[in-house]
Order: sequence, then structure tokens, then C-alpha cells
Amino acid sequence: MSEELGVTAKRSEDFSKWYLDVVRKGNFIDQRSPVKGFDVILPWGYFIWEKIQSKFDGMIKKTGVQNAYFPLLIPERLIGKEEEHLKGFRAETATVTEAGGEKLDERYAIRPTSETIMYYMFALWVRSYKDLPLKINQWNNVVRWDTKVTKPFIRGREYLWQEGHTAHATKEDAEKQVDDIVGMYREMHKILAMQPLVLQRPKSDTFAGAEFSVVLDTLMQDGKVVQGPGTHMLGQHFSKPFGIKFLDKNQKENHVWQTCWGMSTREIGMLIMHHGDDKGAVLPPAIAPYQVVVVPILFKGKEEKVLEEARKAAAQLEKLSLRTYLDDREYTAGFKFNEWELRGVPLRIEIGPKDIEAKELTVVRRFDGKKEKIKMTELNKIRDILDEIQKEMSEKSRTFLNQNIHDVKSLKEIRGGFSRGNWCGSVDCEKTVKTSGAEIRGTLYKKEEKPFAACVSCGKTAKHVVYIAKAY
Amino acid sequence: MSEELGVTAKRSEDFSKWYLDVVRKGNFIDQRSPVKGFDVILPWGYFIWEKIQSKFDGMIKKTGVQNAYFPLLIPERLIGKEEEHLKGFRAETATVTEAGGEKLDERYAIRPTSETIMYYMFALWVRSYKDLPLKINQWNNVVRWDTKVTKPFIRGREYLWQEGHTAHATKEDAEKQVDDIVGMYREMHKILAMQPLVLQRPKSDTFAGAEFSVVLDTLMQDGKVVQGPGTHMLGQHFSKPFGIKFLDKNQKENHVWQTCWGMSTREIGMLIMHHGDDKGAVLPPAIAPYQVVVVPILFKGKEEKVLEEARKAAAQLEKLSLRTYLDDREYTAGFKFNEWELRGVPLRIEIGPKDIEAKELTVVRRFDGKKEKIKMTELNKIRDILDEIQKEMSEKSRTFLNQNIHDVKSLKEIRGGFSRGNWCGSVDCEKTVKTSGAEIRGTLYKKEEKPFAACVSCGKTAKHVVYIAKAY
Repeated sequence: MSEELGVTAKRSEDFSKWYLDVVRKGNFIDQRSPVKGFDVILPWGYFIWEKIQSKFDGMIKKTGVQNAYFPLLIPERLIGKEEEHLKGFRAETATVTEAGGEKLDERYAIRPTSETIMYYMFALWVRSYKDLPLKINQWNNVVRWDTKVTKPFIRGREYLWQEGHTAHATKEDAEKQVDDIVGMYREMHKILAMQPLVLQRPKSDTFAGAEFSVVLDTLMQDGKVVQGPGTHMLGQHFSKPFGIKFLDKNQKENHVWQTCWGMSTREIGMLIMHHGDDKGAVLPPAIAPYQVVVVPILFKGKEEKVLEEARKAAAQLEKLSLRTYLDDREYTAGFKFNEWELRGVPLRIEIGPKDIEAKELTVVRRFDGKKEKIKMTELNKIRDILDEIQKEMSEKSRTFLNQNIHDVKSLKEIRGGFSRGNWCGSVDCEKTVKTSGAEIRGTLYKKEEKPFAACVSCGKTAKHVVYIAKAY
Repeated sequence: MSEELGVTAKRSEDFSKWYLDVVRKGNFIDQRSPVKGFDVILPWGYFIWEKIQSKFDGMIKKTGVQNAYFPLLIPERLIGKEEEHLKGFRAETATVTEAGGEKLDERYAIRPTSETIMYYMFALWVRSYKDLPLKINQWNNVVRWDTKVTKPFIRGREYLWQEGHTAHATKEDAEKQVDDIVGMYREMHKILAMQPLVLQRPKSDTFAGAEFSVVLDTLMQDGKVVQGPGTHMLGQHFSKPFGIKFLDKNQKENHVWQTCWGMSTREIGMLIMHHGDDKGAVLPPAIAPYQVVVVPILFKGKEEKVLEEARKAAAQLEKLSLRTYLDDREYTAGFKFNEWELRGVPLRIEIGPKDIEAKELTVVRRFDGKKEKIKMTELNKIRDILDEIQKEMSEKSRTFLNQNIHDVKSLKEIRGGFSRGNWCGSVDCEKTVKTSGAEIRGTLYKKEEKPFAACVSCGKTAKHVVYIAKAY
């Protein structure tokens, strides 16, 4: 399924072209679908999504979250029930108006997110405090008719995600849920070896209909950030218009407190933009579809012997529960090296006639290109090497973030990465910041920082330390 | 989330009402969504789907099938590329005509199935025999605007399924793929303890755009059948209009041969209609969300001791990798018994003060109500009991099918279950059969049977032994 191989741009020259080359030629996604903004997620990209799914699904289920499935279509009148929510999504919804060639009596939105249809059902289900907390998640597809669709995975019109929705008897319980989920998203980013900043968004950028939003912002190599998973405290904004009420232990009627939270296939694009190098993607071992690729180096006359040893090594690695691919396809070794580097496989094992003589294997790390020989009898070391790579990738990510947070005292000083500045809290100053091309992404979640200077914009007394960055 | 408990109709009195009660009150699905025919799959039903997914996903991946994801929307012009296909789906497609409140330049169908958009991409991907076979599967949602939407899971407007699509260099290879998949679907039905008839459909009922279709028809307790998973030999019907061509080893250009195959959430409804009894669902242990429910029988003053033992037992069962639920909710034991019977949990374990004294547990089988005592030290027996239930359910299903195949020589003899008759092969006679309310479902797949009488309809020489049944 691959085309002409090779990345045609360096990150430093044209980051955008480099990214498009890697996702397309690395077989992560195919943008040539006949519907603009609706890209085809290729097996290599989808496999990463499956890994993300299984890891996160395990985490939430342990805390009592249950998966379910709600309708793809939502009556338009339902979306309008929460005013802010409607405002937030109106411009982006795709609408079904016909079926079987006939005009429908009602207009249906393809879900841009499922609050409204889920909470309609929650109102039917919740009666008593015994029904709470209610914790429901769904893995599904959503459509938002974004106008900018040039970055597959990062911005598109359809994407895959999970959306979790919970209802609680008390505000405290809902706030604790936000905390728990933020913790799980942090854990997910550890698995992805991406160090985020966990920020509480300013009011202007809070999820449509929420009290506050907590988001993992991750820095890409070009100094811009991508918003990753978001967790939203909905308060009673939805439970009131949707009438989600329960009788407490004293038979008193109350509205529930709610949260919602989502993580999408966007993470796959982030992985590439965050970790990749000029040769292509660099995937963390924890979520790489293949962790190890075994490439036999064939010389005339020795093919069978080499293939046999390569097969043996691959079988042993599989036995060690490592995701292994034996690349015995009819291509040259050089072609295979390039392809697996482009796709980001953490470890390549080469086996040639000389290795066999020396009872060794050549192991090449994708992350830093380090080459080493290991004894054929010591294949169990491979797991340690993978763990080491995972650790080093995480450390590199942490260092990258730390080195790219710069304190600023005026708008002029704002540059790539995160600019850490002070803000008076006014919407006007927030707007002024935006004229710099960057924007106020928020304050550290649950980690209050004291202003260290005046507001970057108006120069008056600052209330918050905020992180400012350009975003995708 | 449950309402008034209990099934209000017996199967023998009102099968349809019984079914609606079980799926709704057993918390499998909720039909009260605000969009007709788009039902909410509740956690209990969704869990079964997850089990089905993980079993089937494992099977296909072992044979080199890869998962991917294709757009939800398909340009209408693309659906029209294969004429029969268009005819088959035109009346059922939902159409998106607007986005962000503005009319779109192009009309998009919500996928009723994905052949057309997938094969558009296949044509871009396949170049050489080296790219074949191409085996792609997706787990997704589809919309078909069915007019009859009274049976949740069985007939609805949106459902979840997997759709597998393969492309091969030769006809033989494609036919072998059909065979392999039919084998895997048989295996799935073993796991579901439902004995199907594997039938090749008559031409009139072949998938729109296929050469032939092989389908698992399973008999429900009311004598009607439900079409389960289907596998379709597409030949070159799609590869020609879509231009999916490859160069073979001799550099000759050929069109690929294709198959497609799907299995949906319909299986969940079938499970209930096939295995259920007047108390509710009866789930096979292999796919039951919980395999064992532990219910502590609480008497005043002994609560703590009983709960402690119940917790111990549940923990031990979990250690044995059995899906276990300790029901320590604030309800009476009787309420719990009813609920888990309605939901179909294979085994209930009761622990009361007397059991504790005797160091025993009471084990009650959902399938046949059999009660036995086992020693607390012998909990490992539970797995054997579950295996036994699975086996007995399969045997019962096999017997049920065999007892409900009746040989018929005329239309008058056609009754519930499968009527095994003879057919001359003419479309007119097929239509006449339909006037009986039943229809020709097909011939046994790869198991030729010699006609044993004249055509059930016209009385002329018969060509095929066919299976006739009423279907949902």
C-alpha cells in the first residue's frame, strides 16, 4: 500500500510538509479520500488507536465506568437545550435532512459530541441516589465541519474518540471525578511518552456549556501546542435544562452534577509531531504496533540459513510477548530499513551471515540510532532495551517542555514554546494577547502560581500566571 | 437504571412483547431514544458486543486481516458506480445536505455499508501482485433507514458491526477467503451456542452487487429465522467499475477478485430470542458480561460475617479469571435473584449463614435452574460447571434446529421452523412460495443435496433442495 518512499522535507525547513509526508508515506493515514476532511485511517495508524483504546479502557473500567452506545443522529431541537452548547457547535454540525430520497419531518445533526442525547437518556434513568454515580463512556465517531482540514489527525471533519459522561450526587464528587480523569489522561501521556502541561482554560476557551475545562496541552517540535484530552466540569449546566434529578437519602429532589471528558485520534498526530525526526516517525515502545522488526540480510547462497535464524529469533521474541514482525518480503534490506524508520518501529534487528557466525544479532534503536550486538542467547534483553527507550523518550519529552517555557513580561517577548506570563484576567487583554498570534492557554491546574510581574498586556496588577502559546 | 422489573408476557403468549420486555428491563437496550430506530445500547448489551468483538477480532487478525477506518460519509455519485449496489441501498440511505447551516455542493450518504468508499481507496492502493491479498476490516456504525423498526437489535436504523473487505489476485483465492470467513462465523456461533444453518442465498436475495452470498440463518424460539453474519463473493463486480487493477508476475494487468463480510449487534438480539426463557435472557458463559454473580443472603446480626465470606468467594473467583460480580447493593436477595435471571447471568452463588456453617456455597444454574452445594474449598469447580453449561446450551441449540427442520412436498405443508423442500429454480415459483408468508432462504452451502420430490410450487422437476422459513 505504500507509495514512493522517503520524507521530502526536513522539520527545520517545512514542518508541515514533513508531517504530511510522514503520516502519508508512513502509512498512518490517507488524505486522498473523496470526502474532504474525512481521512482514511490506515492499519498502521489504527493499530496505535487500538493500543490507546485498550490502555485507557482498562483504566476507566477499573473505576466503574461502563461503555455504552448512543445514537449517531441528534434532533436539532435537543442540541439547542443548553444555550452555550448550541452556540459552540452550531457552525460545525452536519445535518441530515433526507432519508430514502424523501425529506424528513425533523432535522438531525450528526453528533459533534453527545451531551444532549446522552443527558436526555440520563434524565430517564436517574431516579434515586442509588443510581449515582452514573459513569458512562462511549467509543465512537463524531463529525465537526471544521473549515481548516489540512492537518490529518490534528484537524479533520470526522474523528474517532472516547467521550465519557458522568453524573454525581454532589459537586465535590463531580470535582473528584474531574481529578481522577485528569490523572488517567496524565497516565496515558506517560504511555505516549509526551510530557504535557495540564492547564485550566480561561473562561473564553472553556468547553461550550462547562464551568471549567482542564486540558493537556502538549508542545510540538515546531514550538506550537496541540490540545490533547480534555476534562470538563459541567456543574448543573446540563442537568437543569435536561431535568436530570434524583431523590437523595432524605427524599429531597436535587439536580445531578456532571462531568465529561474526551480523547481522540488526534493523539496519533501528536505522537508524530512530538517525537518524529527527519527520517520519519519515532514511536514509543508502549504503543508501537510492532515493537521489533526482524530484517534478514540476505546474501546469495546463504538465504535459507539466514531466513531460518531470522524466523527463530522472531518466534522467540513473540514468545516474550513482544510485538514482532519478520520482514521477509521481496524487497531489499535498504528499502526495509527506510520503511520501518519512516513508520517509527522502536527496534530493528538485523541478521546476516556474519551475525550467524558470531552467534549474534545487530540491534538498532530507532530513537537515537544506537547500534549494538547482542548474543542470540540473550534475546530477553530486548525487553530491557525497549523499556530503556520508553524511559529515555519520556525524559527527552520532559526536558523539551522545560526548556521551552520562557518567562515573559511583555507581549514582545512572546515566542515559540510556552511563554509564561502574567495576566490581569480581563477579556480585553486576552484579546490583545491574541494579536501576537499566540493565545492564553490557561493556568496550571491545581497548582497556584503567584504572579511575578504586571499583566503582559495592560501592565496593571496581574491575577494569574498564564501559559501563552501558538496552537494548532 | 432499571425500571419496574419482571417480564410481563410469556413467550408462548406474546413472543414479541416478551422480547421487548427482556431487552428493555434486562438493560440490554433502551428504545426510548429521541430518534426512532436509533436505540441506545446499554452497558449490559454493549459488554456482550465487546466480547463478540474481541473474539472475532482475534480470529481475523490471525489470518492477516488488518483493521482500519474509512469515512462515515460517502458522496452519492460514488454509491452509484455499481448499479445493483445502488439499487439495493438507495431507498435506505440517510443524506447529509447541509453543514454549518449552509447547503453543501455535494450530497453525502451516511454509509449504509462501505464497499464504494473502500474500493475507491483500494484502487489507489493496489498496484502489484505484491499488494495482494489485501484484507481490511473496520468496526463501525452504519445507517439504513429501515421502515420497520419495532425490534431493537434485530431491525433498527443504526447498528454497529464489522465489515471485512478483501481483494485477491485470483477467483480461487477469493473463494477460499469466503470459505475461511464462513468458518470463522461458524466458530463465532459456537461461542454464542447458536446452531445455524449455513445457506447460500438464492439469486434474488444475494447481497447487492455480489455473485453469491453465504449466510448463517438461525432459528428463534418462535419458529422464525434471523439472518446472522453474511459473507459475499463479489467476483469482479466492483473491481471493474472502481478500477482496482494489479500487475501480475508476468506484468499483465488484471482486476482483483473481492469478498466482503459482516456481523452486527443483531447477534445480541438473536442470543436473547434463541436462548431466553420466561424469566428472561439466558446467556452462554463464553460471552456473558458476568459469568457468576455472588449474592450474600443477609440475616440480622450476621451481615458482616456473610458479606466477608461473599467477598472472599468473589475475590477467589476473579483470581480464577471468571467474570464475577459481588452484588452487595441495598436490595433484597429476591430482587437480586430476579434481576440477574432477567439479565441472563449463567451462575448465581448464594452465601447465607447456614452455608457458612457448613462451609458450603449454593450454586444455581440459570440455564436449567439446577441447584447444587459445593464446598468453599472447591471453587475451582465453577469453571467446569460453566463449561458444562456452555456445552449443554450448544447441544440444546443443535437439537432444537434438528427438530425444527421438516420435509415438505407442497406449499400447504410449510410451517414454522425450516421447511425443507424442492425447487425448480424459477423466480416465479420463488414468488409463489413467498405468498405462504415464508420464503426460500437458500441451499446448504457446499453440501449438495439431491432433490427428493418435485418443486413445491409448480410440481415440475426440482433442481435444488431448499430451506424455507419465515424471517424477521
